[in-house]
Amino acid sequence: MNLVILGSTGSIGESTLEVVRNSKGKIKVLGLSAYSNYDKLQRQSHEFKSKYTILAFDKDGQEKLIDLVTKPEVDTVLVAIVGFAALRPALAALRAGKTVALANKEALVTCGELLMQEQKQGGGKIIPVDSEHNALFQALQGHDISDVRKLWITGSGGPFRGHSRKQLARVSVKQALNHPKWKMGPKITVDSATLMNKGLEFIEARWIFDFKEKNIEVIIHPQSIIHGIVEFIDGAMLAQMSVPDMKAAISYALYYPHRQTDAVRPLNLIEIKKLEFEPVDVKTFPCLSLAQLALKMGGYSPTVLNAANEVAVGAFLNRKIRFLDIPELISKTMETAPRQSLKLDMIFEIDAWARKRTSENISSL
Amino acid sequence: MNLVILGSTGSIGESTLEVVRNSKGKIKVLGLSAYSNYDKLQRQSHEFKSKYTILAFDKDGQEKLIDLVTKPEVDTVLVAIVGFAALRPALAALRAGKTVALANKEALVTCGELLMQEQKQGGGKIIPVDSEHNALFQALQGHDISDVRKLWITGSGGPFRGHSRKQLARVSVKQALNHPKWKMGPKITVDSATLMNKGLEFIEARWIFDFKEKNIEVIIHPQSIIHGIVEFIDGAMLAQMSVPDMKAAISYALYYPHRQTDAVRPLNLIEIKKLEFEPVDVKTFPCLSLAQLALKMGGYSPTVLNAANEVAVGAFLNRKIRFLDIPELISKTMETAPRQSLKLDMIFEIDAWARKRTSENISSL
Repeated sequence: MNLVILGSTGSIGESTLEVVRNSKGKIKVLGLSAYSNYDKLQRQSHEFKSKYTILAFDKDGQEKLIDLVTKPEVDTVLVAIVGFAALRPALAALRAGKTVALANKEALVTCGELLMQEQKQGGGKIIPVDSEHNALFQALQGHDISDVRKLWITGSGGPFRGHSRKQLARVSVKQALNHPKWKMGPKITVDSATLMNKGLEFIEARWIFDFKEKNIEVIIHPQSIIHGIVEFIDGAMLAQMSVPDMKAAISYALYYPHRQTDAVRPLNLIEIKKLEFEPVDVKTFPCLSLAQLALKMGGYSPTVLNAANEVAVGAFLNRKIRFLDIPELISKTMETAPRQSLKLDMIFEIDAWARKRTSENISSL
Repeated sequence: MNLVILGSTGSIGESTLEVVRNSKGKIKVLGLSAYSNYDKLQRQSHEFKSKYTILAFDKDGQEKLIDLVTKPEVDTVLVAIVGFAALRPALAALRAGKTVALANKEALVTCGELLMQEQKQGGGKIIPVDSEHNALFQALQGHDISDVRKLWITGSGGPFRGHSRKQLARVSVKQALNHPKWKMGPKITVDSATLMNKGLEFIEARWIFDFKEKNIEVIIHPQSIIHGIVEFIDGAMLAQMSVPDMKAAISYALYYPHRQTDAVRPLNLIEIKKLEFEPVDVKTFPCLSLAQLALKMGGYSPTVLNAANEVAVGAFLNRKIRFLDIPELISKTMETAPRQSLKLDMIFEIDAWARKRTSENISSL
């Protein structure tokens, strides 16, 4: 299988190359791209004998990526680019009928409907690489979608599970970065602490599986062993489980519909002892509700939500605002967002507007 | 869909008719049979306008059942007969290409290999109705069997979970019949207390799914919410869950590959709070190991195991022996069992021999 990895020097990119290393030649790296980390990209290109290696920092980077992913010899494109830059290459790959293993959040959150339309028309296939959506994708295999009542996304609850608003008012950046289960970059770790990660996943699930909001649920599961649960109309459920390791989802996406031996270590349920569940405390963690509101508002609202969140989280990481300011700032920017129907060309402009607006609101705090 | 229910007056039969009642005419009862409960059978026949109603107590009962299940208008046969009487009708239905929803244990335990051969050759299909096997059957849908590493059968552990052998030496019939999770008949409730039910299910799983012994595992899960788990080669698992209600499995077997709305009430994981796991205490509960031994020995050993268990459990229920005598007696009868390869015609004879032998051993206690 010929693979292209967009964003190969990041955390997902490196895990993907680890999966390729263990593939015993079954997966061939045809192309690699990175935004700016030239040295690491060169090392990867050398190790995997990548035919095409693109540093996308140049002004014609996007065109090069689109050219790469649409080459006839490409089978699968793993999109691990962070941010909007993933959108056009992902759309181009789908249009060309490729399998797109999608690890980028922004594309689905802001343009999920568009991506799914492109999948339908272009003949390509999106396989989600996020562990929750990958879990749901696995559990849905072989079952008629009309027999499914609900999709359940699980979340560990993050480092502040059980905290009161009063306690949250004082939390430090260091505490927010201390995730109990997953090792991830700082931005997404803060998203796990605010539960905005569940909000973004909620929006993604709505588009990936074409499910209505009322049929998607979020549940806290502190052990992070069950990643997603499909609830059927007859009252049965299928829960997908694995150790919390991104390689599980990446490997499944690359080997689909088959599986790779020992992609991750097997679960030992006897050692794990128990799997617990509790409701989301939506009053203390309002980011999930904000995301659901953005989905309901439609248009550019998810784009604004995403941009405002990024800026607010950045300000928190730079110790410019407090933890509880994050949802406040997102809400404030969303209130003044333009109410228009979505056009792809406008996405970048609205995104920039929301970032600027949120920064202004931060300055006036 | 035209359904025949063999053994309609028992607990599984009645639950099946409950599923039919809720089917809004989608399932039509074509035939019903019972062994001896004439009054109840007549009431059922009247309510469901059954075209064929057979009291199988007569000496030509078996022939009538075989004639019924092979009729061209029959789609599905639910086999809820207890004991060996299920064997020939089940084989005949498979030979005639019918779907067989199999709730009988004895047929699979003693002649599992034969039944699976008949399924292959006859074009019929077995769908297991036992909740553990039905769960595994559900979780396997849509996945390549070569990607599966292990099948996990769960058990509640029964009323004596955590007991020592010393404590078990003194348990009463009343205590053994007090199952924490499932409402079942007395024989199978005692099997749950000795863990012989997991032993019999282990043997059944070996044949239903054509899996080697080393790839089947049993795990204690006190909440009885997860009924079966498929472990894949990549380290992922799919767990099937539902409230502990036989209607879940019966409904799935009858609607397969689709599902019935509200067959059982949905799970509320937040109310359930936690799912726990622990290893089987094989030293204190040796019946599982005895069943694994019988499977290893092959031939008539599972038949002898099953017969000796039935007689021993009967003697325990009649207060003739103590709880810990049950595995001792089974082991003793198995030691002197004939070592021959299995022939269908001999099953009844060996079964009778094992029952007689176990009774003799009980008398000489």
